Amino acid sequence: MPRGEETVRTSKSTAAAIRFDVVDAGPSIAAVTARVAEIGGRIRALATVRRLDGDPPLAEIELEVEGVTEAALVAALDGLDDVRTVHLTRALDSIFGKRIIVVGGGAQVAQVALGAVSEADRHNLRGERISVDTIPLVGEEHIAAAVRAVADLPRARLLVLAGSIMGGDISVAAEELRAVGIPIIALNMVGSITDHVDLVVSDPVQAGTMAVMAVADTAGFDLARQRGRRY
Amino acid sequence: MPRGEETVRTSKSTAAAIRFDVVDAGPSIAAVTARVAEIGGRIRALATVRRLDGDPPLAEIELEVEGVTEAALVAALDGLDDVRTVHLTRALDSIFGKRIIVVGGGAQVAQVALGAVSEADRHNLRGERISVDTIPLVGEEHIAAAVRAVADLPRARLLVLAGSIMGGDISVAAEELRAVGIPIIALNMVGSITDHVDLVVSDPVQAGTMAVMAVADTAGFDLARQRGRRY
Repeated sequence: MPRGEETVRTSKSTAAAIRFDVVDAGPSIAAVTARVAEIGGRIRALATVRRLDGDPPLAEIELEVEGVTEAALVAALDGLDDVRTVHLTRALDSIFGKRIIVVGGGAQVAQVALGAVSEADRHNLRGERISVDTIPLVGEEHIAAAVRAVADLPRARLLVLAGSIMGGDISVAAEELRAVGIPIIALNMVGSITDHVDLVVSDPVQAGTMAVMAVADTAGFDLARQRGRRY
Repeated sequence: MPRGEETVRTSKSTAAAIRFDVVDAGPSIAAVTARVAEIGGRIRALATVRRLDGDPPLAEIELEVEGVTEAALVAALDGLDDVRTVHLTRALDSIFGKRIIVVGGGAQVAQVALGAVSEADRHNLRGERISVDTIPLVGEEHIAAAVRAVADLPRARLLVLAGSIMGGDISVAAEELRAVGIPIIALNMVGSITDHVDLVVSDPVQAGTMAVMAVADTAGFDLARQRGRRY
């Protein structure tokens, strides 16, 4: 079911965040999530960040939970047999913030990143938190898979497609991504992609700059009012 | 407890990955994780990627599970009352791969990203998957918090500190990060940080290039043999 941006809530995180070691087995993690539910928490993120050899093998888990205090979360998990070494951390949202994702050819990705990082620097100085995350890729299949996977990335707010020729399944994937509420800026390039994005920008540095302006609360740039334009 | 790199396993992901909508409440997610444990799965990642208004409000969840097939995972979740719209996806590991994280001042971060993206392009062409993720930040407190948070980022393999002056609590945070097995390259700069990293590189483009070489299986660069050197 396609969804417009207007139905997607993006509230500020107030999650309690901890990192802990746990015995690396399915029931151990199920015990953690059951305990979180018991104390009234809603899990926002649970990620295995590292695995540690040993007897038994351990997994190091980053956990973010809404609706509970950090103290309550630590107390709840400390009582579980399989949980070791609980550290308080900070929700990734509050550190790395909104993510601009840049995908495409290395030369263009680097120039988009230059514009986006420079612009993010200016907004982050004023209290924003904007990250610029990139991957250089070649080939319709790999790029289309990356476009689809942006929908699965926590905190991804906008995709920039940086290349010289894109179309086919990449254009199909672009429409799927926009349908879940993530807008796309593309460089002006060969192929059908420029008909399947929100904005087309010829200069990669400006494309990166506009991408950051579009997601920054500290900027007065409204992508919705630019939709379909080319610069 | 500090841990050396040698104790950290980083096996290739063989996780089944799905995205689904679920009623946005603690017990709904606990039911999902309990069901995953019942079928013998180990949760590697669970992230709320979007929240959707409505009655009831829904959360869109990305879930990666080891030890089960995709078909078994879909079948298990399809039977749950609170789960809607299950899509197969691909584990983020297989799309975005290893992550180089670049933190510091905008001007330097952009130049490190230029080197890292260009070098990642060359390795990704040969079958690697390396992402270059950046955030420009200012201030000891914010940079130290970001350094600590790199330990909580899935798939983070190496940090580059790109700036002109860093020390104090940033150096403390750097040692903490290295203790969990994530190496650090720093630009040559003012402050104590250069005594608390694995490698110091003066040219930001080369720092980005070396960072990618250090994590690429397709490169013959061994950071351990360069430890403590300055270029």
